[in-house]
Amino acid sequence: MRKLKMGMIGGGKNAFIGAIHRIAANMDGLVELHCGAFSSNPEISKESGKELFLRDEKCYNSYEEMIVTESLLPQDQRMDFVTIVTPNFAHFKPALMALDHGFHVLIDKPMTLTLDEAKQLQQKVKETGLVLCLTHTYSGYPMVKQARKMVADGTLGKIRKVMVEYNQGWLTSLSENDGNKQAVWRTDPSKSGIAGCMGDIGTHAAQLAEYISGLKITKLCADINIVVEGRKLDDDGNVLLKFDNGANGILVATQIATGEENALKIKIYGEKAGLEWHQMEPNSLIIKWPDAPTQIYRAGENYLSNIAKSNTRTPSGHPEGYLEAFANIYRNFALTLSSKLDGKEPTEAMLDFPTVDDGVRGMAFIENVIASGKSDQKWFDFKI
Amino acid sequence: MRKLKMGMIGGGKNAFIGAIHRIAANMDGLVELHCGAFSSNPEISKESGKELFLRDEKCYNSYEEMIVTESLLPQDQRMDFVTIVTPNFAHFKPALMALDHGFHVLIDKPMTLTLDEAKQLQQKVKETGLVLCLTHTYSGYPMVKQARKMVADGTLGKIRKVMVEYNQGWLTSLSENDGNKQAVWRTDPSKSGIAGCMGDIGTHAAQLAEYISGLKITKLCADINIVVEGRKLDDDGNVLLKFDNGANGILVATQIATGEENALKIKIYGEKAGLEWHQMEPNSLIIKWPDAPTQIYRAGENYLSNIAKSNTRTPSGHPEGYLEAFANIYRNFALTLSSKLDGKEPTEAMLDFPTVDDGVRGMAFIENVIASGKSDQKWFDFKI
Amino acid sequence: MRKLKMGMIGGGKNAFIGAIHRIAANMDGLVELHCGAFSSNPEISKESGKELFLRDEKCYNSYEEMIVTESLLPQDQRMDFVTIVTPNFAHFKPALMALDHGFHVLIDKPMTLTLDEAKQLQQKVKETGLVLCLTHTYSGYPMVKQARKMVADGTLGKIRKVMVEYNQGWLTSLSENDGNKQAVWRTDPSKSGIAGCMGDIGTHAAQLAEYISGLKITKLCADINIVVEGRKLDDDGNVLLKFDNGANGILVATQIATGEENALKIKIYGEKAGLEWHQMEPNSLIIKWPDAPTQIYRAGENYLSNIAKSNTRTPSGHPEGYLEAFANIYRNFALTLSSKLDGKEPTEAMLDFPTVDDGVRGMAFIENVIASGKSDQKWFDFKI
Amino acid sequence: MRKLKMGMIGGGKNAFIGAIHRIAANMDGLVELHCGAFSSNPEISKESGKELFLRDEKCYNSYEEMIVTESLLPQDQRMDFVTIVTPNFAHFKPALMALDHGFHVLIDKPMTLTLDEAKQLQQKVKETGLVLCLTHTYSGYPMVKQARKMVADGTLGKIRKVMVEYNQGWLTSLSENDGNKQAVWRTDPSKSGIAGCMGDIGTHAAQLAEYISGLKITKLCADINIVVEGRKLDDDGNVLLKFDNGANGILVATQIATGEENALKIKIYGEKAGLEWHQMEPNSLIIKWPDAPTQIYRAGENYLSNIAKSNTRTPSGHPEGYLEAFANIYRNFALTLSSKLDGKEPTEAMLDFPTVDDGVRGMAFIENVIASGKSDQKWFDFKI
Repeated sequence: MRKLKMGMIGGGKNAFIGAIHRIAANMDGLVELHCGAFSSNPEISKESGKELFLRDEKCYNSYEEMIVTESLLPQDQRMDFVTIVTPNFAHFKPALMALDHGFHVLIDKPMTLTLDEAKQLQQKVKETGLVLCLTHTYSGYPMVKQARKMVADGTLGKIRKVMVEYNQGWLTSLSENDGNKQAVWRTDPSKSGIAGCMGDIGTHAAQLAEYISGLKITKLCADINIVVEGRKLDDDGNVLLKFDNGANGILVATQIATGEENALKIKIYGEKAGLEWHQMEPNSLIIKWPDAPTQIYRAGENYLSNIAKSNTRTPSGHPEGYLEAFANIYRNFALTLSSKLDGKEPTEAMLDFPTVDDGVRGMAFIENVIASGKSDQKWFDFKI
Repeated sequence: MRKLKMGMIGGGKNAFIGAIHRIAANMDGLVELHCGAFSSNPEISKESGKELFLRDEKCYNSYEEMIVTESLLPQDQRMDFVTIVTPNFAHFKPALMALDHGFHVLIDKPMTLTLDEAKQLQQKVKETGLVLCLTHTYSGYPMVKQARKMVADGTLGKIRKVMVEYNQGWLTSLSENDGNKQAVWRTDPSKSGIAGCMGDIGTHAAQLAEYISGLKITKLCADINIVVEGRKLDDDGNVLLKFDNGANGILVATQIATGEENALKIKIYGEKAGLEWHQMEPNSLIIKWPDAPTQIYRAGENYLSNIAKSNTRTPSGHPEGYLEAFANIYRNFALTLSSKLDGKEPTEAMLDFPTVDDGVRGMAFIENVIASGKSDQKWFDFKI
Repeated sequence: MRKLKMGMIGGGKNAFIGAIHRIAANMDGLVELHCGAFSSNPEISKESGKELFLRDEKCYNSYEEMIVTESLLPQDQRMDFVTIVTPNFAHFKPALMALDHGFHVLIDKPMTLTLDEAKQLQQKVKETGLVLCLTHTYSGYPMVKQARKMVADGTLGKIRKVMVEYNQGWLTSLSENDGNKQAVWRTDPSKSGIAGCMGDIGTHAAQLAEYISGLKITKLCADINIVVEGRKLDDDGNVLLKFDNGANGILVATQIATGEENALKIKIYGEKAGLEWHQMEPNSLIIKWPDAPTQIYRAGENYLSNIAKSNTRTPSGHPEGYLEAFANIYRNFALTLSSKLDGKEPTEAMLDFPTVDDGVRGMAFIENVIASGKSDQKWFDFKI
Repeated sequence: MRKLKMGMIGGGKNAFIGAIHRIAANMDGLVELHCGAFSSNPEISKESGKELFLRDEKCYNSYEEMIVTESLLPQDQRMDFVTIVTPNFAHFKPALMALDHGFHVLIDKPMTLTLDEAKQLQQKVKETGLVLCLTHTYSGYPMVKQARKMVADGTLGKIRKVMVEYNQGWLTSLSENDGNKQAVWRTDPSKSGIAGCMGDIGTHAAQLAEYISGLKITKLCADINIVVEGRKLDDDGNVLLKFDNGANGILVATQIATGEENALKIKIYGEKAGLEWHQMEPNSLIIKWPDAPTQIYRAGENYLSNIAKSNTRTPSGHPEGYLEAFANIYRNFALTLSSKLDGKEPTEAMLDFPTVDDGVRGMAFIENVIASGKSDQKWFDFKI
């Protein structure tokens, strides 16, 4: 095993999510930043790389240059994978090119601008046998994995109801007009695609619901809203859900919930028990029983499943958070690549990260939920 | 002012809600139990009354006998109002008869079995000028009143989104077949009407949403479910909402949320601020700001509005609860009646209790939400 | 069984704790207000009684007049017990006189002004066989009773550590100089005795610690402070404790904890488990295990002990609070008196209220803790 | 600015705190692991280094070898600082040697085995002008820094009372006899020094109290206990405190609080406001007012002080935790060293990490608190 070499696309100076990716990549010492095309502006790319202690020659002028140049280096000197941290519209091309040149890919969600692009990437991954990892951060939390395991083990019995809500307040006003860089691209259809809020956070909520419950959404009925006047994409939505086992559900995603930070919460009810998890207090998993005291499962405890334990770095009571959840995705992805590089089969635990298939499903969610929102029809079949 | 005399219909031995009503009526010493027709079984009525320290002659064999007999007594010796604590199907007739004989009425919700009955009561109240009070308990909490006041004062700005959920787990299994008395009648269409969960708790959620927000539901899109096989009425539902000012919303009411107790929660978001209230921690009202720390308003504090303060009995930190909220309704009703008896106009604060109009609106909610649940149409106009 | 007749001493218009006592007495319909000497000012006594719907002749000019007059009435027409809700200094004489005239007594804490007076009352209770109930409200909470039961049952194993804190902020400034009526007498040695904070709330904390743990304080080491300049009695204190089984502990009572409401919290740790209870969220009891998830026991649930269940009026999720805890003391006291009146032995559950022995212990706590505070000696034997 | 080179002493395979240090050092990409003497066993040192992707020659057989060898390398090729992550007894010698050879030092707390050693290090730091950083992790949390800032700014007014408790349950049983590696050395006087619990976590509590309040402990009165039979060092203690401005306080540190994880909590009360912070929910700081709603300050929000903002990596609602707090210490230390290397004066924000002076104070706390525990004298002067 050796330290993996990462090439970064996007994430230049002042970019939000690029910095997060680097922390996540750094955390466990399994990955090193090898090179980058940090900006479409070559000068900014250089400066950004310099701040990250990269030599000049490893700061490329464009992702195309980076992919081509690196692909020509000997295997032990070139990057092992690219990480794509650009806005949505700039995911597809570099991902496809990287796969075409033999590089594994890690990419932010939503995976592409359209479902069609997503399917092309899925096809490419299939053909190349390379790995594409999608950073649905919230499925990286240990207590989310514990929840998924307990559902899979039947602790809750047959699942009957799923309630997921993702409430943010940062788009309460028309901040895209006040120069908020995040707001600008996330509310711009040419950068974000057909969905705003539903793409940005609705996809997270849907992925979390399916990840924990092990179920698939089969029908939905969406109320999609532009609440803040003058905005171009949805900033709010409420969605009725049906799952493949007959369970019902509700998904709320909103960015106009004034005063909310990043309040992703999920409740799942089965025949035997219920569970509750809040992203903002991520180290607790609440299990509710019909005839016994509610239990608080806590990250880092001995009684947890192996999958929860192996995605934790600290003993219980030493809180981990968002960056560690993010780092879990990087770590599992890195362990998987390392195994492959060493000619070994990755374990199931290593493979526990979202892939191109989640990316396709996420894009399908976006297309279905927006279509349902526009439709007068009550129940809308979830189509891929 | 004098102590008001209450005649109770229903609420015999082992009845749940009757005992609650008596505690609420007792609490402030403004009302005394004067007589009762506690059961359709005269023997049980007598025994029940005896346990409540009533003389035999004040334990009637039927509500008809009680209403007629009491109406023939001199005004200072007869009951001042009837309180009706029977199952839904047995609300309408005694209420109508009481009004017809000149008695004020306090009645549990939902007010009647059908919207049509509700409208008849509304008409009767209008004709007689008597008072009908409906025990939507949750609007009796001081912090709910504080929330309503803050919305009315514009603290939240224009309301944009209302999220209310009422999660219970007590009908997770088919307990109506195991002799659970509450479950038996509440899941029986002949006793409960066309709705189960939506009538029992959905109406509370809808009333709370409208009470705090000051808005009216104008459209809904309902997913109404019978989750537990073999049940005859809905035990679960998710409803998309539109309000008269254009705000959107979501209402969840479920009795199959395994392990939940009585988890009524509401979040309301306006242009300027958001609020959150949980019935199970009722003495806190959370106010969320876009650019300042979240605030926890607490019952009993000096900085609250008068309406919140006048519905509290203890200093802050001495928790009040469900029974005090219930008692607030009784107290405000009693103060209103006393004012009228004394020939005075009740104050706005005294009149702050749900009335026959809320009862009509609740029955309309039931009929609309059940109809929407059965319809393929997406948005359903809320009709009265 | 019949409704018990209560004679109230103190509690006139605008008095705080008198109103609380009346609510507690009213709540379960077992007690009726029969007469009162509500103030040392006869006019205020009359007015107060009138507001409480008492006839003029039942509003006495003094407690002496009330006790003598009532004692001359036939047994079924006179009061059954007196409730004493005056400031500390005016507890002893009326209590002694009531006992001397054959009346049971319910009295607020601390029981008297001095330990010596407390012992005299104890002696008188012993001689007369009458019942004296002391309103240590917090031991009336169902989850406190559940905690006590679990400790007694050995669920926690041998108790090793007790941490109790009672933090209030209402004396943060010199409010006794601003006409705050409660502050005036509670900080006045002639009204309150040798202790301020330690008498007012320290006694509650000590009683709660001993009640739940089943242990007795044997040694203490106190740091007693007057924090706000100009105050005459302690407003703050920290106390190291040793218990009779060797456990150690800590007791904090303060009234200068700015911004705190009525934050009485207790944590007890045994060899096998720990427990935690907060008065401001009283319906939860937290049980902590070394190797299993923390459990939240909830008031009103089926799995609780009988003693917890019989001190609850509502199903789980319908929060009860301070007034219900207070009412539990009244109810248990009333059931005990009723049993005695009916010639029956009260059950253990009925007898679960604080008595004259707790009153003596409370006064001993005050004298010991104040003496320790003044002493240079580290460990101080708890003497009675 | 360049990436700093770290040499690690201790922290070999399976060591707990060494792995934590590496994560903290990695996180921001400012530090790289350059070399190590990971174990007193050279073979383990090599293996450990290999797992960390170090070349063999950078895995030294002993810290002496490492310090000497590295000191002979050109400045741009040798390590910049050593990080010492061994048990307490093995802190002093390598720290002194490193300083003597011109290396900066980062070291775990408590700094040494005795106060005398601590003073020697303090003297050496003074002489050499090098930087010694001590990892009192909890002062690295952004909301702790916010608390300190608000106290310093006078938001709370004059501080009157400090309550700090640090409750753990992991030494509830005699786990040192069951091979728990952490328990073995931490309860062994030859490895830990004269204190167990007070050294391990009591020092953290004391440092946190002084860090936030800006006050110094001047007197204490300690109850120090060995609760679990057979243990050689204290596992529990309660301490009364006096501070230099006259404030009083209480410090509890215990490792026998069954079922507790890492429950470090602090409450500070001033004349104008109170504050509360819990390590297990570290992103909230609760501010309590006498006459206004309690406020929840949240990490990542715009309204925070610069010092809180500059120690946060994520937007509000994306929880950070223990590792980020730890990384803040590494980052501030690294920024300070980089500034010095670049010949610049570090900013006040960079210098915000615990130093050798905190180390001396921590060792003095240990010696004073243990001496007080053994003394019959009530108040014990805090001596250095």
